Amino acid sequence: MNKISAAITCVSGYVPEYRLTNKVLETMVDTNDEWIKSRTGIEERRILKGEGLGSSDMAVHVVNDILKKRGIKAEEIDCLVCATVTPDRIFPATGNIICGKTGLVNAFSYDIEAACSGFLFSLTTATALVESGRYKKVLVIGVDKMSSIVDYSDRTTCILFGDGAGGVLLEPNEEGLGIQDSILKTDGSGERFLNMKAGGSVKPPSVESVMAKEHYIFQEGQTVFKFAVKGMADVSYELMQKNNLTADDIAWLVPHQANLRIIDATANRMDLPKEKVMININKYGNTTNATIPLCLWEWEPRLKKGDNIILAAFGGGFTWGATLIKWAY
Amino acid sequence: MNKISAAITCVSGYVPEYRLTNKVLETMVDTNDEWIKSRTGIEERRILKGEGLGSSDMAVHVVNDILKKRGIKAEEIDCLVCATVTPDRIFPATGNIICGKTGLVNAFSYDIEAACSGFLFSLTTATALVESGRYKKVLVIGVDKMSSIVDYSDRTTCILFGDGAGGVLLEPNEEGLGIQDSILKTDGSGERFLNMKAGGSVKPPSVESVMAKEHYIFQEGQTVFKFAVKGMADVSYELMQKNNLTADDIAWLVPHQANLRIIDATANRMDLPKEKVMININKYGNTTNATIPLCLWEWEPRLKKGDNIILAAFGGGFTWGATLIKWAY
Repeated sequence: MNKISAAITCVSGYVPEYRLTNKVLETMVDTNDEWIKSRTGIEERRILKGEGLGSSDMAVHVVNDILKKRGIKAEEIDCLVCATVTPDRIFPATGNIICGKTGLVNAFSYDIEAACSGFLFSLTTATALVESGRYKKVLVIGVDKMSSIVDYSDRTTCILFGDGAGGVLLEPNEEGLGIQDSILKTDGSGERFLNMKAGGSVKPPSVESVMAKEHYIFQEGQTVFKFAVKGMADVSYELMQKNNLTADDIAWLVPHQANLRIIDATANRMDLPKEKVMININKYGNTTNATIPLCLWEWEPRLKKGDNIILAAFGGGFTWGATLIKWAY
Repeated sequence: MNKISAAITCVSGYVPEYRLTNKVLETMVDTNDEWIKSRTGIEERRILKGEGLGSSDMAVHVVNDILKKRGIKAEEIDCLVCATVTPDRIFPATGNIICGKTGLVNAFSYDIEAACSGFLFSLTTATALVESGRYKKVLVIGVDKMSSIVDYSDRTTCILFGDGAGGVLLEPNEEGLGIQDSILKTDGSGERFLNMKAGGSVKPPSVESVMAKEHYIFQEGQTVFKFAVKGMADVSYELMQKNNLTADDIAWLVPHQANLRIIDATANRMDLPKEKVMININKYGNTTNATIPLCLWEWEPRLKKGDNIILAAFGGGFTWGATLIKWAY
């Protein structure tokens, strides 16, 4: 195999210290630990505390750790792609700010927004940047400070989300390892079921939009759940079929951590036993763009060279997809 | 040449009907036509009027026109990359919404944010998606409804920006035509000179942030101007040097339309005569992500197969860069 492929050569993650437990949420909204656990699988989530801190402040930990683990200098990074729905600012891009804070002086950088599928879409994008031969060391960072867009008086959404960051380094590989295939999908008709009502060019921020709490996550939970169960399970199965893989061939499923029941449905559809599914939603909740790299980071010591790994996500847009990786180290 | 390159095979643009002239601006803020023209080169800009309309509503015209001109069906598009700093909503992505409105049912889509360099960064990204062999028909749309983030009581910024959309279709090319090379750069230390103060995870929207007008473009004009003149000129010249091109070899410069004097400085550095520089800032002002495709659209009838064209941009981040194209039709 002569073609250059793009392989993950390093992974890292970061979560803030403060733990927002179900017990604490019980004191904030009408909910309870038992209900949250049985419906979502979440026990606690991390929250970034501190005035003036944004998504970039979590991402810098990830970038610095990757540089250290991989033993490379900041100057060697060619590009940084930052997947986020909670950028520090509307502009400039949080990717630019991260590069500034970590000394990536030779990297061009930008943000990608594709809601909960942002990390997966960014990974395929960065894969193409490496495969094209144009760039050698590309960082893909998934980061969200979801606490900045969560309405902590809305018991249907505030229990779900947490803050965190994760990321991977992509480099060329000549053994055919790394990112193998992806199926990525979008359906704009999902807009009305999962969105932020104000804050964009359709409805810029105003006193009225703030008072009406339109700068928070709006979700029609039941509808999104149904689409997510079907979308994430179907696309993961489709990717297996397309690559002639059975459950036995797959070492790990790395699902977006939105809801334990969506994860279970996907694993069932793939006929995968629970032992092959990475799950940490209990500890972090839904960190949106950070869920998948946070899983890879936690499971990294157990991954073996050549392992077939399927990443899968579903989120706002709707956007969804699955990516097949042959682990490279 | 065996390697597949990515070529622009179609281009389109759209500007809204309403013209905001310098004369009208004279009635809104303390400014005058002569001052605006001499300092910026801008005579009028287009504004998208109408309740509930956002960036996607301009972009749909571009997508539909490209499908029609190129004679292809919506189902044939594999991917849509939307460059914008004024998305319809913070999420889902405006790219998803555009796909939904134009029937691109087989395209995955996302937004890229890199301020005024967003179109250029997206073009290189989409080029890699095609060069990797993974995708055949990729749309790159640059769109901004700048009027949604302009403070029309601030005479230093409200004279500069306009609304518009433009886009290109990228397809594989086996003659070596299309996108040849890019130099893309970012410098996060530019954050403080050109930004939106609130509206992100560092400072979410609040009654205070709205009252303080922190959801508008903030710019330290003099500083940005100095960086832009040097950045855009230097990188364009560097790209010429890297590809052994003299001014005689270059058919056209397509500069981001932020300020006529930045454009002039870039052309001078490249030793290019004015006749080879695409300029329409007088009609549209700075449409941010739409400036470059709007130029390509207007000049399309005069472009010839094999023409060497350099695109160049500078913007918030700071982000800047230049891209060399051999025109494919």
